[in-house]
Amino acid sequence: MGNILLLNGPNLNRLGKREPDVYGHETLEDVVKSVEETLNRAGHSLTAHQSNHEGQLIEWIHEAEGVVDGIIFNPGAYTHTSIALRDAISSINIPVVEVHISNVHAREEFRHTSILAPVCAGQIVGLGIKGYQLAAAYFLQLSAEGRGKV
Amino acid sequence: MGNILLLNGPNLNRLGKREPDVYGHETLEDVVKSVEETLNRAGHSLTAHQSNHEGQLIEWIHEAEGVVDGIIFNPGAYTHTSIALRDAISSINIPVVEVHISNVHAREEFRHTSILAPVCAGQIVGLGIKGYQLAAAYFLQLSAEGRGKV
Amino acid sequence: MGNILLLNGPNLNRLGKREPDVYGHETLEDVVKSVEETLNRAGHSLTAHQSNHEGQLIEWIHEAEGVVDGIIFNPGAYTHTSIALRDAISSINIPVVEVHISNVHAREEFRHTSILAPVCAGQIVGLGIKGYQLAAAYFLQLSAEGRGKV
Amino acid sequence: MGNILLLNGPNLNRLGKREPDVYGHETLEDVVKSVEETLNRAGHSLTAHQSNHEGQLIEWIHEAEGVVDGIIFNPGAYTHTSIALRDAISSINIPVVEVHISNVHAREEFRHTSILAPVCAGQIVGLGIKGYQLAAAYFLQLSAEGRGKV
Amino acid sequence: MGNILLLNGPNLNRLGKREPDVYGHETLEDVVKSVEETLNRAGHSLTAHQSNHEGQLIEWIHEAEGVVDGIIFNPGAYTHTSIALRDAISSINIPVVEVHISNVHAREEFRHTSILAPVCAGQIVGLGIKGYQLAAAYFLQLSAEGRGKV
Amino acid sequence: MGNILLLNGPNLNRLGKREPDVYGHETLEDVVKSVEETLNRAGHSLTAHQSNHEGQLIEWIHEAEGVVDGIIFNPGAYTHTSIALRDAISSINIPVVEVHISNVHAREEFRHTSILAPVCAGQIVGLGIKGYQLAAAYFLQLSAEGRGKV
Amino acid sequence: MGNILLLNGPNLNRLGKREPDVYGHETLEDVVKSVEETLNRAGHSLTAHQSNHEGQLIEWIHEAEGVVDGIIFNPGAYTHTSIALRDAISSINIPVVEVHISNVHAREEFRHTSILAPVCAGQIVGLGIKGYQLAAAYFLQLSAEGRGKV
Amino acid sequence: MGNILLLNGPNLNRLGKREPDVYGHETLEDVVKSVEETLNRAGHSLTAHQSNHEGQLIEWIHEAEGVVDGIIFNPGAYTHTSIALRDAISSINIPVVEVHISNVHAREEFRHTSILAPVCAGQIVGLGIKGYQLAAAYFLQLSAEGRGKV
Amino acid sequence: MGNILLLNGPNLNRLGKREPDVYGHETLEDVVKSVEETLNRAGHSLTAHQSNHEGQLIEWIHEAEGVVDGIIFNPGAYTHTSIALRDAISSINIPVVEVHISNVHAREEFRHTSILAPVCAGQIVGLGIKGYQLAAAYFLQLSAEGRGKV
Amino acid sequence: MGNILLLNGPNLNRLGKREPDVYGHETLEDVVKSVEETLNRAGHSLTAHQSNHEGQLIEWIHEAEGVVDGIIFNPGAYTHTSIALRDAISSINIPVVEVHISNVHAREEFRHTSILAPVCAGQIVGLGIKGYQLAAAYFLQLSAEGRGKV
Amino acid sequence: MGNILLLNGPNLNRLGKREPDVYGHETLEDVVKSVEETLNRAGHSLTAHQSNHEGQLIEWIHEAEGVVDGIIFNPGAYTHTSIALRDAISSINIPVVEVHISNVHAREEFRHTSILAPVCAGQIVGLGIKGYQLAAAYFLQLSAEGRGKV
Amino acid sequence: MGNILLLNGPNLNRLGKREPDVYGHETLEDVVKSVEETLNRAGHSLTAHQSNHEGQLIEWIHEAEGVVDGIIFNPGAYTHTSIALRDAISSINIPVVEVHISNVHAREEFRHTSILAPVCAGQIVGLGIKGYQLAAAYFLQLSAEGRGKV
Repeated sequence: MGNILLLNGPNLNRLGKREPDVYGHETLEDVVKSVEETLNRAGHSLTAHQSNHEGQLIEWIHEAEGVVDGIIFNPGAYTHTSIALRDAISSINIPVVEVHISNVHAREEFRHTSILAPVCAGQIVGLGIKGYQLAAAYFLQLSAEGRGKV
Repeated sequence: MGNILLLNGPNLNRLGKREPDVYGHETLEDVVKSVEETLNRAGHSLTAHQSNHEGQLIEWIHEAEGVVDGIIFNPGAYTHTSIALRDAISSINIPVVEVHISNVHAREEFRHTSILAPVCAGQIVGLGIKGYQLAAAYFLQLSAEGRGKV
Repeated sequence: MGNILLLNGPNLNRLGKREPDVYGHETLEDVVKSVEETLNRAGHSLTAHQSNHEGQLIEWIHEAEGVVDGIIFNPGAYTHTSIALRDAISSINIPVVEVHISNVHAREEFRHTSILAPVCAGQIVGLGIKGYQLAAAYFLQLSAEGRGKV
Repeated sequence: MGNILLLNGPNLNRLGKREPDVYGHETLEDVVKSVEETLNRAGHSLTAHQSNHEGQLIEWIHEAEGVVDGIIFNPGAYTHTSIALRDAISSINIPVVEVHISNVHAREEFRHTSILAPVCAGQIVGLGIKGYQLAAAYFLQLSAEGRGKV
Repeated sequence: MGNILLLNGPNLNRLGKREPDVYGHETLEDVVKSVEETLNRAGHSLTAHQSNHEGQLIEWIHEAEGVVDGIIFNPGAYTHTSIALRDAISSINIPVVEVHISNVHAREEFRHTSILAPVCAGQIVGLGIKGYQLAAAYFLQLSAEGRGKV
Repeated sequence: MGNILLLNGPNLNRLGKREPDVYGHETLEDVVKSVEETLNRAGHSLTAHQSNHEGQLIEWIHEAEGVVDGIIFNPGAYTHTSIALRDAISSINIPVVEVHISNVHAREEFRHTSILAPVCAGQIVGLGIKGYQLAAAYFLQLSAEGRGKV
Repeated sequence: MGNILLLNGPNLNRLGKREPDVYGHETLEDVVKSVEETLNRAGHSLTAHQSNHEGQLIEWIHEAEGVVDGIIFNPGAYTHTSIALRDAISSINIPVVEVHISNVHAREEFRHTSILAPVCAGQIVGLGIKGYQLAAAYFLQLSAEGRGKV
Repeated sequence: MGNILLLNGPNLNRLGKREPDVYGHETLEDVVKSVEETLNRAGHSLTAHQSNHEGQLIEWIHEAEGVVDGIIFNPGAYTHTSIALRDAISSINIPVVEVHISNVHAREEFRHTSILAPVCAGQIVGLGIKGYQLAAAYFLQLSAEGRGKV
Repeated sequence: MGNILLLNGPNLNRLGKREPDVYGHETLEDVVKSVEETLNRAGHSLTAHQSNHEGQLIEWIHEAEGVVDGIIFNPGAYTHTSIALRDAISSINIPVVEVHISNVHAREEFRHTSILAPVCAGQIVGLGIKGYQLAAAYFLQLSAEGRGKV
Repeated sequence: MGNILLLNGPNLNRLGKREPDVYGHETLEDVVKSVEETLNRAGHSLTAHQSNHEGQLIEWIHEAEGVVDGIIFNPGAYTHTSIALRDAISSINIPVVEVHISNVHAREEFRHTSILAPVCAGQIVGLGIKGYQLAAAYFLQLSAEGRGKV
Repeated sequence: MGNILLLNGPNLNRLGKREPDVYGHETLEDVVKSVEETLNRAGHSLTAHQSNHEGQLIEWIHEAEGVVDGIIFNPGAYTHTSIALRDAISSINIPVVEVHISNVHAREEFRHTSILAPVCAGQIVGLGIKGYQLAAAYFLQLSAEGRGKV
Repeated sequence: MGNILLLNGPNLNRLGKREPDVYGHETLEDVVKSVEETLNRAGHSLTAHQSNHEGQLIEWIHEAEGVVDGIIFNPGAYTHTSIALRDAISSINIPVVEVHISNVHAREEFRHTSILAPVCAGQIVGLGIKGYQLAAAYFLQLSAEGRGKV
């Protein structure tokens, strides 16, 4: 049995409340619940946090060390600006899957670069909130292959 | 009757205390009081906040939704670095006027670009603390034309 | 009693006649009249010119020296290309407020840079034709404080 | 019956007089006459102007509104520097075909970019003074299809 | 019942044969078979092609129109160079998920930009050959929601 | 009597079938037929090819040497990426007119640069499929002046 | 007797716990204790703080005014991104020595630029945790010369 | 006996009146008179013009053809922006010496590039109004060597 | 006894037929024959291919694995554009010497960068068709030293 | 007992003689003497050289191999331009500490980049001539820890 | 009576011997002699040096301090690469006139930037070896005005 | 009988002594001897020099004029920085082959550009010290063809 951490960054607390044409109608609570159900069904657990504070996100990543088996991370706008979050990810030994709900490559130029991507395991981009489920599925497959605890 | 939110970002708590040749001698409290008087005289109210924390500023913007009719925002140095604040502004339905006390275009190169400007209604730059009053005047005019609640 | 010069650059003679979604429905004549009324009410006078010729605008700026107490200047497209206008402004001793009707930062990349801004007192951007009134208000406040003749 | 405006920008008054290896031996008068004949033959009329003054070119474009059905425009060097001309073209409702006699893409780097091209209907480049005739032919075809007055 | 097209671009015929530290040990045949099984189990079919020829890939995309319900596409190195493939994707009405086996963002600079991404539905990057399975899972979820035929 | 080669590059086989707002409703066959009629009427012949393969286009250009008097070439997306096509054009002694149906300068940044333009005679851009006819007209005029065989 | 402030930015709470090949085995507590001993021995005191929050670091810098005689600052990743921290340093009248444990110039490109360096007294880079001791030695020498309180 | 044309561009009518620390105290009339005396003494004549209008400067250059033996040209700010003036110079067969009173290379970045320099004979920069005299001396030497009429 | 593969890319089939001032008068057949003679004399064999198709060149490189001891490769214009060819070279275990007949560094800017060079053993540039012979000599020396089969 | 080499590059022979506001009043001889005393006190020796010749500096670095235990190097302006000095440092096995007297990051842009920094152990910047003493202190600490001979 | 130093940098010892189309037929000795005659006639003296060694040029500049009243300097290619020469010029208190024989702005891009120009009094460019004479004339005029010793 | 000059630039005196994984184990003396033997065998002679001084290399190139028939030049790090060496090569009439032992294109970005390449005959890169032999072979072939004295 493993434990997955679902982290969401700035403005994702507003998910489903605004700009539905970009981000859809489901709330962050809906997302958390559905990912949790998927993981529970497979005998794993989920911890979920959201913060608009870069420093708080850094600390949750630090605290994950030794406790968590995989991180699903939607860093919001910090994706494009936070070297500090990159250093936090580099400082732990846990695979991170970066998730973006919208197709960032079809939006403003400054959303095309991820400072975090090079230190993550991979990215799932533009597949809507399904991206969170697919990231969970990735960790379940890793676990099934015995290559990760989840 | 409308409600205006006056937001000030990092280091503006030091206004009037240091670098008077750049920012003048009046304190942030002076600024808030004088803008408030102007708005009260016209039958409107003012809420004012200052924070050095990007996350806190984001949250005040979220909380303004449905409560505030216009935002006067001096984002300080986050003007040039915060995509997260831009996303917060995009996520609400309230006109924002970006104010800079000094003429940022006459200072270092990195102060010439505002990440927030494209999602604000407009900017008032370099007119000293008068800029806050002019922003308030803008909202009063909008209100007088019936195009905004203030 | 002071005198304000209101300068408008290329294509602003077409204000109110075309692209109303960008520039609104009021004509340049409407703008001039309303700014003049505001200034007259406070005992000041207004001189207003519009030209599509860079050289003509330069010469009006030269002629302002010693005659005018403040300039409200919407340089239109010359904002982004004219070093000669910048040199003209540098060569006089009169505060200039740069006004743009539309939010230039939300339009094409080449409209994001102002060659004139570093030698102006400040800018008012994106607040529609209200920007002209706010610039006049700025000079009236300066005058009220005894820091300028207007 | 329609009316076409043929505008030529700076230095084109020298056409046929100098640098024949770049621009050929025919004068601007020859060009105007031959385009006029083509249009007259089809029952249309031509108005032709040349100026070295950016402001004058802007004003001829303004005056075309409501009077002219298509513009053939060789903006000369202003092609690469004039945002003011671009704004003038955007402010009218008439299709403009940008013509360059020489192949600007085979010359200096700074001639490879046209500030005007994005707001024109199209460009004809490098086909010598025949380019003017082809632009006229384009308007005649539009007219024949009933999609333009010419 | 829907039909999925699995396209692989240049050098992917060598999958599993070389550079296993970058791409792993499974061959392209293994990948195709496992994705096919997943889709068949859900009552859908798979067509799979690989080519080192840009023109051939373009033509398979053209031929998909009206026949295929979703495309899983690993464009290999053409990701970073082929505007022609982008135009091909734009010309059809089928959602495309771009898949990269390795984390391209952790490799050479020139692999960080995808010319195709802005016209795809989304990307799955760096999750090994599991990425193909996750893309298939995405189409199955779309189908389950009735938002796509698969 | 001369012979013109009409070459079309990648995705132009889809002309008239998709994205009619960008490229119009006429098919490539319609274009070929109408250009052919124009040329035949003047006693010339047309050979027309389309390929999505860069190598194939290169070879048709090679084969034109000594056989063809002028080339009308819409290189599609290869315009912006193919130095090999440029070298092919440089290696023959035949004038080439580059044609683009849409106004590439009003589209994405990467469509603003043509690698081929400097070695072509000229370009006709943004005038719809009329551009092909105008290119043919250019060759007919050249021929009428005795400066080319067509 | 003087007082030195030792500030450490994001992720430095993890010092000695991870990536020992980059940052060594000593913990932040070890560093603080050894710098404190050196300063105490010379009759000076040390205050030490670490935070992952940009806003908190800004506030400690504000609070140093009038209380602290020199600041030893390892801003971690905020070195490369925080204009707000730069403004905070500019707003106080205390010499700051920027310290980096690793040789940032031998790491990723984005670590080569310090936004803070121009407003600091100087930098000590790449000399391991010895860098903190050397910064303290610098302040002790300043004090011995009577040019600073420490 | 030869004839020299002395052209001065925008804002140089203000020479000696403003910014004496940059441009000195002598007026443009002083400069013209002293250059004229030098040339007259050697049996040559001087024609001098100043304009703030790019188009006017272009026309004076056109009119020089066949009448003038050398041009001393201080193009002011048009140095850095006017391709049209460059084309005018290219279109005549007269050596031009570009003169700048101040050392443009020690001022703002945008003053470091001259669009005109590559088509002038040479430049004299930063030597104050003496630069005009040195340019005249250059033409006198050319004439003495029989390599120019002056 | 070893086997060398001589690959030539786009437009090199035209060698000796056109642009002799750039590429000389010898044909590709002449080159192949003379390299073959050199290798045969030393007891080695040569296989030679030319293609204008990027995909075909990729496949010949794939097929070389296990069969060929060294590759002499003139990639023509694909040198500057093909990441796919680079990946093909990376995917095999055979030393490749990149050959350019002309001095690409003395030609257009876009010919100065080779995408392939970093994954080749080395380059021979600008020494005419002698470059092919020198590459063969390199493999013969490697073989003589017992460090390669050739 | 160890031996330290103190190298100073171009213009540092003028130290203390000119521009005291940038570099202070102490001469290079003063610096050398004080560093020597510090090292002698700890039982180590110092060799000191200054040259304005890049080649001479390269050779002193070569000669240090096997003789010197640490190098304190102020490369002056060669810091920003000399790849040859970087190669010399790479070619020896001795730790080098790069010292700059002034805060190069607060000066011209071209002084912000050090070509040498990535191959040095570290840098001490902006701490005046104290920087040399701190570099010596660094080597003394290394020696005390038994990690270097000094 | 004053003393002028004439410095020539790398490759100028070859003047008049090679590339006469770029640099003319006169030798460096001719230049020195003619400048010397001019200065002697006015009662001043000339010292002249040429070196291909950057370090040597730096040292001659150092030695000029207190001995020389003006420097005429053609730094050859070091113009574009030597920050060390710039620092040498900054370190002395003597006006320097930079001379270039050819019009560097009409040659390769890398010759368009002078690292030295911002710290020189001015530049004379492209006026052939006459440029040296004009520089001497400048110093003679300065001297005549009593603003310099020469 | 001809004479070849073998020039080696900075740090190449250390060849074979350090960094053998980059440059191999043979010394510069070994290289010189083996190239000399090859040339002597063919009846030609070799002169060889190495210097770390840019000025010295320039002078050897000057002295080669009229004495040497071909130059084999490994300019070391000066390859990437010395315009002065480029000018020296341009000033003589002798073919130069630039040799690099390592594959500079597979190393740091700043080694990818050669300032000298455009004025050399060609380059041999990355083929180890064999590159020197291949350069000699090139001159022998030239001589055999009667196109050069060697």
